[in-house]
Amino acid sequence: MVRISSSLVLVVALVSAPCRAVWPNPKAMTTGSTFLQLSPSFTINLAVTSPPSDLTAAVARTKGFLATDKLERLVPGRGSADSAKITAAKQLARLTVSLASGSAVTSISSEAVKALGSRVEAYNLTVPADGSDATLKAQTSLGLLRGLTTFEQLWHTLGNATYTTSAPIAIQDAPAFPYRGFMLDTARNFFPVADIKRTLDAMSWVKMNVLHWHVVDSQSFPLVIPGFEELSTQGAYSPTKIYSVADVQDITSYAAARGIDVIVEIDSPGHMSVISKSHPTLMACVEATPWSNFAAEPPAGQLRMASDDAISFANAMFKAAASIVPSKYFSTGGDEVNSNCYTQDTVTQAALKSKNLTFEQALSNFVSGTHKSLATAGKTPVVWEEMVLDHTITLPNTTVVLVWQSSTNAAAVAKKGFQLVHAPSDFFYLDCGAGEWLGNDIGNSWCDPFKTWQKMYSFQPFQNLTTAQHSLVLGGQNLLWAEQSDASNLDSIAWPRSAASAEIFWTGANQPNGVPRNSTEALPRLHDIRFRMVQRGVKAIALQPEYCALQPSKCT
Amino acid sequence: MVRISSSLVLVVALVSAPCRAVWPNPKAMTTGSTFLQLSPSFTINLAVTSPPSDLTAAVARTKGFLATDKLERLVPGRGSADSAKITAAKQLARLTVSLASGSAVTSISSEAVKALGSRVEAYNLTVPADGSDATLKAQTSLGLLRGLTTFEQLWHTLGNATYTTSAPIAIQDAPAFPYRGFMLDTARNFFPVADIKRTLDAMSWVKMNVLHWHVVDSQSFPLVIPGFEELSTQGAYSPTKIYSVADVQDITSYAAARGIDVIVEIDSPGHMSVISKSHPTLMACVEATPWSNFAAEPPAGQLRMASDDAISFANAMFKAAASIVPSKYFSTGGDEVNSNCYTQDTVTQAALKSKNLTFEQALSNFVSGTHKSLATAGKTPVVWEEMVLDHTITLPNTTVVLVWQSSTNAAAVAKKGFQLVHAPSDFFYLDCGAGEWLGNDIGNSWCDPFKTWQKMYSFQPFQNLTTAQHSLVLGGQNLLWAEQSDASNLDSIAWPRSAASAEIFWTGANQPNGVPRNSTEALPRLHDIRFRMVQRGVKAIALQPEYCALQPSKCT
Repeated sequence: MVRISSSLVLVVALVSAPCRAVWPNPKAMTTGSTFLQLSPSFTINLAVTSPPSDLTAAVARTKGFLATDKLERLVPGRGSADSAKITAAKQLARLTVSLASGSAVTSISSEAVKALGSRVEAYNLTVPADGSDATLKAQTSLGLLRGLTTFEQLWHTLGNATYTTSAPIAIQDAPAFPYRGFMLDTARNFFPVADIKRTLDAMSWVKMNVLHWHVVDSQSFPLVIPGFEELSTQGAYSPTKIYSVADVQDITSYAAARGIDVIVEIDSPGHMSVISKSHPTLMACVEATPWSNFAAEPPAGQLRMASDDAISFANAMFKAAASIVPSKYFSTGGDEVNSNCYTQDTVTQAALKSKNLTFEQALSNFVSGTHKSLATAGKTPVVWEEMVLDHTITLPNTTVVLVWQSSTNAAAVAKKGFQLVHAPSDFFYLDCGAGEWLGNDIGNSWCDPFKTWQKMYSFQPFQNLTTAQHSLVLGGQNLLWAEQSDASNLDSIAWPRSAASAEIFWTGANQPNGVPRNSTEALPRLHDIRFRMVQRGVKAIALQPEYCALQPSKCT
Repeated sequence: MVRISSSLVLVVALVSAPCRAVWPNPKAMTTGSTFLQLSPSFTINLAVTSPPSDLTAAVARTKGFLATDKLERLVPGRGSADSAKITAAKQLARLTVSLASGSAVTSISSEAVKALGSRVEAYNLTVPADGSDATLKAQTSLGLLRGLTTFEQLWHTLGNATYTTSAPIAIQDAPAFPYRGFMLDTARNFFPVADIKRTLDAMSWVKMNVLHWHVVDSQSFPLVIPGFEELSTQGAYSPTKIYSVADVQDITSYAAARGIDVIVEIDSPGHMSVISKSHPTLMACVEATPWSNFAAEPPAGQLRMASDDAISFANAMFKAAASIVPSKYFSTGGDEVNSNCYTQDTVTQAALKSKNLTFEQALSNFVSGTHKSLATAGKTPVVWEEMVLDHTITLPNTTVVLVWQSSTNAAAVAKKGFQLVHAPSDFFYLDCGAGEWLGNDIGNSWCDPFKTWQKMYSFQPFQNLTTAQHSLVLGGQNLLWAEQSDASNLDSIAWPRSAASAEIFWTGANQPNGVPRNSTEALPRLHDIRFRMVQRGVKAIALQPEYCALQPSKCT
């Protein structure tokens, strides 16, 4: 009941059993071929004086996963052929976890929200073959968290045994890029806090470190902002579909304890229609029809960015919103500003005339104002690419720019000297391929086709950039726009595909030793982390028939 | 962050609030505009002497859903604007459920597995506006089940009230087609019994009545067949990934109690490679490489259909497998038989020579043998279209033919006089659009793009058929091939899309009164059944932002 596409190129590849199942691939890793078991009394010795509570919790989670993952090796027979070797293997009784001498003892959470580029995530991990103590060392608690995450992936189960086939193991690891993100839109459809936390869990397992939280949009405003409660009271889908200040703190602290910075986005001025419910006079072209003349998607409605009361409102709102999140970054969005909406709006036209400003000048003033407001709250602004490519807005080069329209636009952003995050729709949009969601449209979506993990994994972070521009690439991210998603399909649409970008931006433009990335090499490891996610309750989808998962070389 | 495709046609449609939220649309339905509540003491009076236990259970399920669905109307404010009307509404205290006078009292389960065309599913349902008893009547328990399912969909929640806006309601309903199916492949990846049961639940909510169970394939053999236990012992992915005889009985009885017939498929002789694990001498071209020369997908391996021992094996196996399922139907499959596999197989070539048969003659004999074996077990055979379109096999016109390669092939099957089931890959394949699953292939799958619900819903069951051929159309089905699916994404890939085919084959080629089907009319109702499924624990995906779900006319 299948046809194989005619474009299929047959390549018979030899892939060995996945003794190296770590995802993302460490910067440097050597493995042996000695079997080693975890002792039934295996323990993790946290040799840190007065360890921070989030580090203690991370160690406890690792111990939990070692006990409960129960993931058999993805080989025919699931490892049973090695039963005798496993039984006879030496036992590892202890992993000693310590900070490098002289390191200050600080929490994972505090390191996770430092400025990009200053977070220290490196670690060294060794697992001797003779049963002597394994060691994990780092300069920071955050580095130790990353090492613990790697340690969890070294082990598989057969019966009651938890073992590796690959001792001794030595890993020296550090991320290639400081920004490895996942964007979640919680405005088109709402996601309960528990689902966001589960996503943070999965992100941490593949060492992603930024949740770009597109929390509100034209359709709903679920975020409670102190002093601006009316926005969510009147703009949320329902009183239960709201993120309270306590929820936000819960999410940001849960994330930080897992090494993840939460960058909140309030997308202005183009994606704000719902604000009209509580502040109608601040808004232009609210629900104007046909919506496609006024907005990228329904409903139309933009903030009157040239009007003083709207400017004051925005500045105060951004300052208040910034106060409830620990990140040093905050996104003001700025994509898809529709000029026709303002052209048709008499209030905006009157304001422009009275101030003697062009549309572009007014927009520039508006953005500068919100950014200044964020600066007073200690935040560095993040914007979508249109802010620097399509408008004449003066922004400092500290601004972080998200490239989304096309991967090829990264070069233009870099040429202007901005730090950039790769978020291209042609590689990393998780929602592409599900068809057009407008009710009467039978066709496919603008960003079809579906982005396979192989497509995502083929992304080249330095493509079309000069060597001097490489340092402008902060990293990249997968993105889930939620027009056709909610908690029902969050896991299956996000995982394991998002692990592809996680590896690109952790391991680097190439694999270790300059070897080009290769989906044939990656597939067994990706299967492994996918099966591990399922064991941990994240409903990551099957990439292939189980027949292939156990012997990927037979399915190329 | 979206672009709207340039092919978008703007149509502003006026869609009223979904007072008519039933899916599939009944054959005839009239509604009023009077509000009516369910009384807090609402009860269902089953006025049937000695009711069968599955009917009693169906009534209990309906009472349960009325209490637990708690689905608010999908309108802005979720119905709160009608609070006063709801509070003031008359109360319905009782639904009386009865069989038409003179009807024999038989179970849902027995009716559900009768021959296609002889099952009686019709029912009449009335809900007066004045609070007097609602009535549900049918000739069979199965008809009563269908009516109870409709009754559940009439009600929405506001606060503690369960109400309708549309009394009085009168429904006369019966299906347009006898076969309304869902195909599940449990061989590429395994699905636990609980997931199959949840799928049966969802199927029953939209009045689907056939689970076409593609239980085994070349990759794994999870089915325990009495006398042939070695097939699953050696061919299942693991000892826990097996359907025991008790599991099969559990599934078929659970299905039958919900009005669903389970048609099992053992796809022969082309999709049987895994049988080589227990019966290597019966198989040709096992795991031959490159697999694409020998099979539609890996691994290669076909039953030696010309060899006497393989023929004997197949005949006995089909007879034994047929014995464990109540359905009057059983599928021998027959798609994608690879002739090169047999050409290259010396054992097959020797058998053909010694019997003086061509490949086609031998295949015909083989199929006739397995069908004869099924006939002795009381089963009517089901086959894929190649058996009648691509081979010179003499099959009786009672054979049911599944059309899959293209919707346009239905005409050729009908021309040969066969009864057919629409299962076309270009409309009803749920798995299309997720990209190629072969490890090293970055591209898209052969049946891309994704089949949207709108595409599915546009299917015309009588296209290219003469009026005389209409009676050959038994119905149609959605299909889930599981190369990239398992329990993780079963709900989200299947629902609510599969409801589209459910309505086509229940309600008919057109909507009631000959009105053409129209996705704009359907969308609010589809949202409603989707939200109801979510309330009941089936993770059906969001079709649109909630903003649009509450006012679909604003999102066209």
